[in-house]
Amino acid sequence: MDKIKIGVLGATGMVGQTIINMLANHPWFIVTEVAASERSAGRTYEEVMERRWNISPQIPEYARKLKVKECAPGLDCEIVLSALDSSVAGGIEEQFAQAGYAVSSNAKNHRMDSDVPLIIPEINADHLELIKKQKKSRGWKGFIVTDPNCSTIELCIALKPLQDKFGLEKVMVTTMQAVSGAGYPGVPSMDMIDNVMPYIGDEEEKVQTEPLKILGTMSAGDVKPLNAKFSAQCNRVAVRYGHMECVSIKLSKKASEKEIIAAFEGFHPLNDTRLPTAPKRPIVYLRNYDRPQPKLDVNAEGGMACSVGRLRPCNILDYKFVVLGHNLVRGAAGAAILNAELLKAKGYIGK
Amino acid sequence: MDKIKIGVLGATGMVGQTIINMLANHPWFIVTEVAASERSAGRTYEEVMERRWNISPQIPEYARKLKVKECAPGLDCEIVLSALDSSVAGGIEEQFAQAGYAVSSNAKNHRMDSDVPLIIPEINADHLELIKKQKKSRGWKGFIVTDPNCSTIELCIALKPLQDKFGLEKVMVTTMQAVSGAGYPGVPSMDMIDNVMPYIGDEEEKVQTEPLKILGTMSAGDVKPLNAKFSAQCNRVAVRYGHMECVSIKLSKKASEKEIIAAFEGFHPLNDTRLPTAPKRPIVYLRNYDRPQPKLDVNAEGGMACSVGRLRPCNILDYKFVVLGHNLVRGAAGAAILNAELLKAKGYIGK
Amino acid sequence: MDKIKIGVLGATGMVGQTIINMLANHPWFIVTEVAASERSAGRTYEEVMERRWNISPQIPEYARKLKVKECAPGLDCEIVLSALDSSVAGGIEEQFAQAGYAVSSNAKNHRMDSDVPLIIPEINADHLELIKKQKKSRGWKGFIVTDPNCSTIELCIALKPLQDKFGLEKVMVTTMQAVSGAGYPGVPSMDMIDNVMPYIGDEEEKVQTEPLKILGTMSAGDVKPLNAKFSAQCNRVAVRYGHMECVSIKLSKKASEKEIIAAFEGFHPLNDTRLPTAPKRPIVYLRNYDRPQPKLDVNAEGGMACSVGRLRPCNILDYKFVVLGHNLVRGAAGAAILNAELLKAKGYIGK
Amino acid sequence: MDKIKIGVLGATGMVGQTIINMLANHPWFIVTEVAASERSAGRTYEEVMERRWNISPQIPEYARKLKVKECAPGLDCEIVLSALDSSVAGGIEEQFAQAGYAVSSNAKNHRMDSDVPLIIPEINADHLELIKKQKKSRGWKGFIVTDPNCSTIELCIALKPLQDKFGLEKVMVTTMQAVSGAGYPGVPSMDMIDNVMPYIGDEEEKVQTEPLKILGTMSAGDVKPLNAKFSAQCNRVAVRYGHMECVSIKLSKKASEKEIIAAFEGFHPLNDTRLPTAPKRPIVYLRNYDRPQPKLDVNAEGGMACSVGRLRPCNILDYKFVVLGHNLVRGAAGAAILNAELLKAKGYIGK
Repeated sequence: MDKIKIGVLGATGMVGQTIINMLANHPWFIVTEVAASERSAGRTYEEVMERRWNISPQIPEYARKLKVKECAPGLDCEIVLSALDSSVAGGIEEQFAQAGYAVSSNAKNHRMDSDVPLIIPEINADHLELIKKQKKSRGWKGFIVTDPNCSTIELCIALKPLQDKFGLEKVMVTTMQAVSGAGYPGVPSMDMIDNVMPYIGDEEEKVQTEPLKILGTMSAGDVKPLNAKFSAQCNRVAVRYGHMECVSIKLSKKASEKEIIAAFEGFHPLNDTRLPTAPKRPIVYLRNYDRPQPKLDVNAEGGMACSVGRLRPCNILDYKFVVLGHNLVRGAAGAAILNAELLKAKGYIGK
Repeated sequence: MDKIKIGVLGATGMVGQTIINMLANHPWFIVTEVAASERSAGRTYEEVMERRWNISPQIPEYARKLKVKECAPGLDCEIVLSALDSSVAGGIEEQFAQAGYAVSSNAKNHRMDSDVPLIIPEINADHLELIKKQKKSRGWKGFIVTDPNCSTIELCIALKPLQDKFGLEKVMVTTMQAVSGAGYPGVPSMDMIDNVMPYIGDEEEKVQTEPLKILGTMSAGDVKPLNAKFSAQCNRVAVRYGHMECVSIKLSKKASEKEIIAAFEGFHPLNDTRLPTAPKRPIVYLRNYDRPQPKLDVNAEGGMACSVGRLRPCNILDYKFVVLGHNLVRGAAGAAILNAELLKAKGYIGK
Repeated sequence: MDKIKIGVLGATGMVGQTIINMLANHPWFIVTEVAASERSAGRTYEEVMERRWNISPQIPEYARKLKVKECAPGLDCEIVLSALDSSVAGGIEEQFAQAGYAVSSNAKNHRMDSDVPLIIPEINADHLELIKKQKKSRGWKGFIVTDPNCSTIELCIALKPLQDKFGLEKVMVTTMQAVSGAGYPGVPSMDMIDNVMPYIGDEEEKVQTEPLKILGTMSAGDVKPLNAKFSAQCNRVAVRYGHMECVSIKLSKKASEKEIIAAFEGFHPLNDTRLPTAPKRPIVYLRNYDRPQPKLDVNAEGGMACSVGRLRPCNILDYKFVVLGHNLVRGAAGAAILNAELLKAKGYIGK
Repeated sequence: MDKIKIGVLGATGMVGQTIINMLANHPWFIVTEVAASERSAGRTYEEVMERRWNISPQIPEYARKLKVKECAPGLDCEIVLSALDSSVAGGIEEQFAQAGYAVSSNAKNHRMDSDVPLIIPEINADHLELIKKQKKSRGWKGFIVTDPNCSTIELCIALKPLQDKFGLEKVMVTTMQAVSGAGYPGVPSMDMIDNVMPYIGDEEEKVQTEPLKILGTMSAGDVKPLNAKFSAQCNRVAVRYGHMECVSIKLSKKASEKEIIAAFEGFHPLNDTRLPTAPKRPIVYLRNYDRPQPKLDVNAEGGMACSVGRLRPCNILDYKFVVLGHNLVRGAAGAAILNAELLKAKGYIGK
């Protein structure tokens, strides 16, 4: 099989760099194009990144000599992964879809559009059905698929098996999010040394609304949102990678702690699909009294698993627990890649 | 007026040091005794603290030459402030009370005893009535008064005006607590650099139970606990001073944001009492979108005020907000001092 | 006496904010003008700083309603303190000097000009003599006086008494500098959490060259640089305020540890001048085995004193020690203010 | 070939844990014994470490069921790796050596003994010759080999090729050391958040004396120390893993930057020996302007390589550079393992 050609839009940011790293030696995909803003275009990726590459010791060999292009159709690839900033992502992604490209986007712009799938492959692969509607209504040859906000992804993964087994009514979550979530340069050191920032722009709204779509059901060609209530408080803390979330939930049916842990540990929805980037265990339940912790658990299953721990009764809702996910891997770069893999497995690309 | 003689039990720890600092030049009190473990006893405070004083540039002049004594009755003072570790506090405080001393304790041991007042002067000064019962039932010449856990104090101060005006039914709180709350050496750097610890021993239980007593009402000589539900998730973050708390509340009556802020800002219960350490404003409400923050707000009113911000509706309960308090000052040393001042103002000491 | 009118150029940055804070209630000066970039001009300081003020809980009352102006002559003041970025400082400061203003600059642009004084009042007040030459050669009605780089200032203060008493031949210094030295947003959190940055642009060159001018002597109207060698290695560490410097020195004459400490502690060059912002002790020598430390010592004498400790023999040069100074106060805002005070005391302004 | 049986003394500390991790699947060695203090003895390693394992997500499978023994001869192994605290290491190691065991120690106690090799395999494998003398003079059936202090190791590795090619006369070094160097719990968070500690007990002395022995030459059965001068200033900074060192050196011969970098990059002394844990490149020279950094470079070659960068002329000595090494791997656990591998390769064990 020839590998599918991939372009990376916004290849110079932290999410873009992480995509570049994760796609080295990918069994299905090959990065043929890296694109960024106009001022980077024309030089090699290596030249552009000389003072900007900062997520690993060095740029993967394969990407060094790629010529950086502008973010506009004309790229030699079948699918683009978009790690663009939301200030520009909307229009650019539309241009690519119109021009016939598949777009797997990490940007927020189209997530809540009613004809755009907002996908976590372990949860709602069937929402890809929206693509047909999208292409038709917009008259596009290509299409856009999105992945959720980083905090939303790990939350939804932890919730999905509970929703399936016990029904989900209320979810309260307080996050303690890593600085890499804000990109680079992102959060100033002055705000993080000996400090907590109790505010992240737009974040609470995303965490309160995206899950309803993700955990919703396809019905007559549309996503019918989950009938549940989410409330979020989002904070930034002095951690590089890994968003911690303290979650309280109200379920529809009674469930014992044992049953809930069994649901977490029995959650293997992609075992048949064999997507290369999918973790064997999307949820790793930790029995230690003080876990998960970013320093120990953020890289579980290459950063693609969510670590859950400290399940215990809640005096107000039913249960509380803590969930941790790698915001750049599971929450962004890996999410866009996994969606691309799903598109391939389902025959939307690579035919 | 002669100043009232005070002894500090556990004077070498971080809370003890903070008490020593706060009592320099106190208008009502004079520290005449510093007491600590057997191995420190016999040397001057300055000698004992040479390699241990670590909360300010230097030991206050007045305390340097005080001889460190063992923590046993016989001290030349009328009241002792106990900053003892809970592993030893219980018995020692009882000995002092039995021997006729007033004890203002920061330790958890006696907080929930039905005949021991658990006091925040702005909230439940009337609970001092328990002292009479305590002395009688225990046959003590002295008595014990306690202050709450550090996280509990700032939470209750923020809640009290809401309870008074609108009734309080449910409180969910997720804390992000400073390392000084664990004393010194306390939390290892290995656990705090680039990390969050989602567990603090005993803390959630304290935050869930102590408020019910503090916010309860005196009834026939006993404290009738508040009929409300508290649920807490407690985390340790890389901050030196200041516990941040993300709170969601359900009230009995409808209240607008404006009314709630007015309640916060109108909360001045001690204005008549004129306790020297009491903050003018126990609650400082901040209108900035990203406040409170430890780096900016922890020292509000000398560390004795709680800073509240980000009031907004909650999708599940009624409202959410963030509260910050200085755990060592408002949450420990200052709490024990303020209780001692209340005891003086109410005539329990210094007659 | 009427207060002297001061304008602050670059009033919105961290150094500018610190100047605004330090000049509240100044006995000699009154801030009448705040100036910044074109896009800030026209609004009140309060409006401009709503989301940018971040060095203290709130903007001093006096500055809130000041109208922000552009950085161009025409301001109603006698002297301007320049906290401008070096990318624009050079030309703007010249315009002000030409237009008759006294300029006390914190920018690097003119520091090494042969006719511009580079002043630390405790060290080389006599270098103000260059002003005459400067005005003459440039045909300006006003003039520019500069203060040194933040790391340079504390180093030179520690060295001056040793130079005076024992002669100074070689100075090796390795710095561990606070992030506030890079302004705001400045150093990204991604670079400081669990990390050290072994590079600060231009810094080593400044530390190696500026001291030679500062510690030089006036000779026939020019500064004759000190004949000594400086070598610097500069690092950024996860500290908010306070540059730490590990220094090794070679002296011309033999000196005992006792004599050196006596030199540090006997250094009171400004006692006659009574400049309001001058610290009583420019150098605080600490005898503790593990000091100075930023957390304990950065605010010595309101941040205007340098803390020195750990004097011990060096196997290669003569002695080693550690020095700490508050980079924003002693190293920038306070330096510009102190120079302005010196100008007043010496009759250059406020006549 | 049967694997050589290894015991780990002090298996519960951070260095011990790192040894346990690094020896999983070792081609030559098998851990048959884990030993620790009396109070741990008798339980399985898993039980003992339940709340103490903290350097990786989980204990390697192979070690879980090992029974923890006391640190006394009688263990079923040929060699012991000692990660004991220096307060007890001295005597225990002697007992093992006397009883016929080979001891590869990470403790400081015997490092400077004239008959004990202080070994970095890349540098002074020939010093193993001291073993014969040691066994004879002490009448032991076994023997002790030591590895140096963590800061010393990376410094000496960086210096060795320069010594070989150009001669080494003076070395000044200022360190910024990671907290893991102090073990666990080790450095309190209160001392590291927003702070630098300019003191590490005993460290400067170790860095000033150990290199002279390591870089010395065997002469008539004794180590003749290097005739050079070292001066060190040691600091603790808020980094988990990786000691940074700013080094200035004076060489005997003139050398260009190019020649020095060539010396760094051409340093492959163990290529013939093929020790399993030896890095291919003991020194990785980085050409980036801002490297090495702990966050990017600490794990070079599995943590066994030292990263060097920023070579530039020094105004006082000849050159300056920065070196970074993983203190727990290259500087402790890996050092003891590499020495054990050298003992095997040279026929001292595993005959």
